Amino acid sequence: MKSTVLSGVKNCDILKVEQGYATAQQDVLAVEEPLEIQLVHGPAAQRRRQSIAVTMRTPGHDFDLALGFLFTEGIIGRAEDVTLMRYAAEQLDPESQTNIVSVELRPGVAVDTAQLSRHFYTASSCGVCGKASIDMVQTDICYQLLPQAPVLDSRVLHGLPAALSEGQDVFSCTGGLHAAGLFDADGRLLLLREDVGRHNAVDKLVGAAMQQDDLPLSNCLLLVSGRAGFELVQKALMAGIPVLTAVGAPSSLAVELAEAYGMTLIGFLRDRRFNVYSGKQRINLPS
Amino acid sequence: MKSTVLSGVKNCDILKVEQGYATAQQDVLAVEEPLEIQLVHGPAAQRRRQSIAVTMRTPGHDFDLALGFLFTEGIIGRAEDVTLMRYAAEQLDPESQTNIVSVELRPGVAVDTAQLSRHFYTASSCGVCGKASIDMVQTDICYQLLPQAPVLDSRVLHGLPAALSEGQDVFSCTGGLHAAGLFDADGRLLLLREDVGRHNAVDKLVGAAMQQDDLPLSNCLLLVSGRAGFELVQKALMAGIPVLTAVGAPSSLAVELAEAYGMTLIGFLRDRRFNVYSGKQRINLPS
Repeated sequence: MKSTVLSGVKNCDILKVEQGYATAQQDVLAVEEPLEIQLVHGPAAQRRRQSIAVTMRTPGHDFDLALGFLFTEGIIGRAEDVTLMRYAAEQLDPESQTNIVSVELRPGVAVDTAQLSRHFYTASSCGVCGKASIDMVQTDICYQLLPQAPVLDSRVLHGLPAALSEGQDVFSCTGGLHAAGLFDADGRLLLLREDVGRHNAVDKLVGAAMQQDDLPLSNCLLLVSGRAGFELVQKALMAGIPVLTAVGAPSSLAVELAEAYGMTLIGFLRDRRFNVYSGKQRINLPS
Repeated sequence: MKSTVLSGVKNCDILKVEQGYATAQQDVLAVEEPLEIQLVHGPAAQRRRQSIAVTMRTPGHDFDLALGFLFTEGIIGRAEDVTLMRYAAEQLDPESQTNIVSVELRPGVAVDTAQLSRHFYTASSCGVCGKASIDMVQTDICYQLLPQAPVLDSRVLHGLPAALSEGQDVFSCTGGLHAAGLFDADGRLLLLREDVGRHNAVDKLVGAAMQQDDLPLSNCLLLVSGRAGFELVQKALMAGIPVLTAVGAPSSLAVELAEAYGMTLIGFLRDRRFNVYSGKQRINLPS
C-alpha cells in the first residue's frame, strides 16, 4: 500500500471490475488506526496514569475525540476538568506518534474508576435490559432539554443531507467515512467531523464544541450518516442536543431513549422525506 | 412504543413527512437490546463465573452470537470447549430473561483472563499502531488460508448482493439491520444473520457454523452490508474465510490485514461492479 497523501486517507492499488472489464487503478482509502486514550489523574501527590480506552479511528482531530469521548462517556463533566492534552509520543515509534493521547485532569477532579471499566450502559441492580440502559443515562446527564425549542421548519430538514455531503471532503474521495454534522435551526452547517466510526465522528464534534465552550448545544441539531442506535442518542443527550437526525434507520432502544429524555429523533432523512420517531413538537410541519 | 410483533422487530407510531405531507403511521423498528455474555470456567473444584462482555444486539440467535464472539475474539479455540449455553434467566425480570447468556467451559479449558480484559488488538510492546494490531491477530489465528482457493467467477460475485437482500426478512421491513451472508463458490447462500451491529451479525454467523462443525469455512465467501473495517476482516480470518466482500468501502487497516494474511478483500460490490483490494488471484476475471 502506498504512502499517505492527505491526513485521513491513504492511496491503494486496486483492481476495478466494471461492465465486464478489469482495470488496475489507484484508489483512496479512509485510514483506520488505533487511538489509545490515557488519563493522568489523582491528587497532586499521587498522580497516576491509566489507559482507559483504545478505539479504532481515522486520524485527525484526536484531541477533540479524546475530550468528547471522556465527556460523552461520563468520565469528565466539563472541558475545564482537563489541564493538558498531548500526544504521548515518547512511548512510540515515529510512525505511531499520534496514536496515544494523554489527557491530564486537574488534581481536584475525581474519576470514578468503576465508570472507567464499565464501558456499557447496563445496571446490575435490575439486570441487563434496555430499560436499565435508559435509566443509567440519567446518572451522567448534565443538561435538560427544553421541550419546545428549537422549532425547525421541515424544509430546513430536507436540505441537511446535501449540506453534509458538500462538507465531507474525505468521504467524497473514499466513500468510507461516517460523518456527523452540527447545524443551527436555520440549517447552517456549524461543525462537521468524519471518522470510520460513527460514534467517533460524534465524539470529535462534541469535543470540538467543548473546546469552544459551546455546550450545551441547545439550539442545534445533529445529523449523522447511516443509522442511529442507542449510543448515538446517548452521546447527543450528553451534549444537550435536542434534535438528532439520521440518514438511516433508528433502533428500538434509540427511540425509547430519545422519548424518555424528550429528544426529537428523526430517521430516513433523505430524498425530501423523513420519519419523526419522537419529539414531533419541535417540527414545524407543512400544513 | 407498541409491543413486539416478530422477534427482532418492534412496532412504533411515527409521523411520516413526504412530499410536503405529514401522516401518522405505524413503522417497524429493528430491536436493540443489551446482551451480557458470562463465562463459567476454571478447574472442577474452583469454577468461577465472570461477565466478559455486554454488546448491544438484536435479539435472536443469541447462543450463536455468544459462541461466535468467544471464538472470533480468541477466548475459546473450538465449539467443543463449551459444555453448556443457557439463558441465565434467574437473575432477571421476565422482560429481560434472554439478555444474559451463560457459557460453561470444560474444566480443562484455560481462559486467558488478560485476553478477557484486552478487548482490542493492540500490542503494548511496540506501541499502539496498525502494524501491531495486525501482528496480534497471529497469536489467535487457528486456520491458514489456501492461497489459490476458492476461485470465484466475477459473475457469481455480481449476484451476491441481490441474494443477500432477498434473504433479509427483518431488514426489508425496518431498513435498520446489518446482514452477513455466507456463500459457496457458486454463489449459493448457505447462512444469513442480521443484527443492528455488523460485528454481531458476523459473530452470529460464525457461531452458527461452529455449531454445525463447519469450521474452517475454507470454500466460502462472506458478504457484509455496509463497510468493512479491521474488526470484520479479523473475525473472517478467525473462521478461515478466504474471501470477504462488502457492499461499502474497506478501511486502510482492513486492506492491510487482508493483505498480511492472504485474504481476498472486495469492496463496493454493487450495481454490477466491485473493487478488489487484495488477493485478486482468487477472482476469475472477465477476459
